[in-house]
Amino acid sequence: MPDRRTVLFVSDGTGITVQMLGHSLLTQFEGLQFKEVTLPFIDSLRKAEEECMPRIREALATGNGAPIVFSTLVNREARDVIRTSGALVFDFFETFIDPLEAGLGIKSNHTIGRSHSSADKQEYKARIEAINFSMAHDDGASHRDLAEADVILVGVSRSGKTPTSLYLAMQFGIKAANYPLIPEDFERRSLPEVLKNYRGKLYGLSIAPERLREIRQERRPDSEYAKLSNCRFEVEQAELMMRRENIHWINSTTKSIEEIATTVLRDIKIERHVY
Amino acid sequence: MPDRRTVLFVSDGTGITVQMLGHSLLTQFEGLQFKEVTLPFIDSLRKAEEECMPRIREALATGNGAPIVFSTLVNREARDVIRTSGALVFDFFETFIDPLEAGLGIKSNHTIGRSHSSADKQEYKARIEAINFSMAHDDGASHRDLAEADVILVGVSRSGKTPTSLYLAMQFGIKAANYPLIPEDFERRSLPEVLKNYRGKLYGLSIAPERLREIRQERRPDSEYAKLSNCRFEVEQAELMMRRENIHWINSTTKSIEEIATTVLRDIKIERHVY
Repeated sequence: MPDRRTVLFVSDGTGITVQMLGHSLLTQFEGLQFKEVTLPFIDSLRKAEEECMPRIREALATGNGAPIVFSTLVNREARDVIRTSGALVFDFFETFIDPLEAGLGIKSNHTIGRSHSSADKQEYKARIEAINFSMAHDDGASHRDLAEADVILVGVSRSGKTPTSLYLAMQFGIKAANYPLIPEDFERRSLPEVLKNYRGKLYGLSIAPERLREIRQERRPDSEYAKLSNCRFEVEQAELMMRRENIHWINSTTKSIEEIATTVLRDIKIERHVY
Repeated sequence: MPDRRTVLFVSDGTGITVQMLGHSLLTQFEGLQFKEVTLPFIDSLRKAEEECMPRIREALATGNGAPIVFSTLVNREARDVIRTSGALVFDFFETFIDPLEAGLGIKSNHTIGRSHSSADKQEYKARIEAINFSMAHDDGASHRDLAEADVILVGVSRSGKTPTSLYLAMQFGIKAANYPLIPEDFERRSLPEVLKNYRGKLYGLSIAPERLREIRQERRPDSEYAKLSNCRFEVEQAELMMRRENIHWINSTTKSIEEIATTVLRDIKIERHVY
């Protein structure tokens, strides 16, 4: 595709925030294709000149339109060299820091790469602990310390519990365990014994049986486990149980991991911190 | 703390991007404390009125200064009601979409919540596969399909391999395995046999022995494993091996998960996609 316009994500830190924000703006132009390049750790004039400028010149030379630069650069000299390069530049730091200083009535630090740095040791530790916790309590692997969980996700196998738990831990520092609801639980017509002490922390994920079949079919082709009739039965029974046990639950079928995690936190009313 | 100013992160989607960006701007004002509230899924005028406005009025009433609102709202009516509320409003969508439309020469879709939605099924599948892969290949748990890995992180126990692997999978859709270097490997003076076929994918994490001691001490207090002398020995031997085997490696001690992951992708030259 020779006619894709180049988009550069340039940051003095990891560039993750700027890439997310730039990307969310670009999704508003459906149908357009871009050549996306990320340039992290551009924390000096020299790096702007040596690592960004060649990319910008190269993009200008293709004739596919001026490259778009989404940047967040605290260093003014680095910003200046990019702003005068002929690229279409959107710098988030520059755009917002002045009005924010005015609004708060104080000057900012102009410190490079403060977000996504491990500056706060306590916060960092809490996050790593949450990740370890969620790993150790994936798929009902351990019943130890379940009292420490912020939330325990329940649902049938492959309803989205594992990625959601890990995301809750990684992005928000939430200790998220998850526990599968299996046919034995449905026969018994009661919650798994170990969960009964933690009703207040339970949150259910359900999924459309047709989608569940697709996912299970890839995992264990042509198994009883993956059969549509079995998926239908398990989902029906799980939803029945969640209703009966008064567990808040959502249907995850068309939701992204971010959307599920956000909904869980909103519903269980945990004020979130984002890493 | 009665005098903290309120910050609201308001989004018609998950609010993760807007919270990250707002947070990165606020870290530039060191020493200030804020009361942060996230309001996701504000996708209509009604929700803006019913879910945001009471929060804004409440914050105005505290007398701690006008609340700061970082928002990304595609719905113009919702934006308008918040903009005229008396809060200090920074809307990312509004700020950037007009100049971006002008630069690209086309109108945007004005579609709500496109980022962090599961709109692209193929991408979504690739991401879930990466998460499953990284979970299955944590801590050398499985040698199967290592050929499929995009990267294999190596290092001593507790050098940061697990959170980095999961982050690479979750945020970037990278299949990241990780494999511990253990005392037996050092005695043998050679790479674990299973890794020898995948030299091109190996990436090393090292860590300061003092920091490693702290981490291990919390995990297994007063064990041989956690002793400073043992941590020193293991780190020294691991670095020796990585040098000898010509494995690219970094010191993870003061780096966040995001910084390690970003550095790995930059060094192994994988162009990243962000979820």
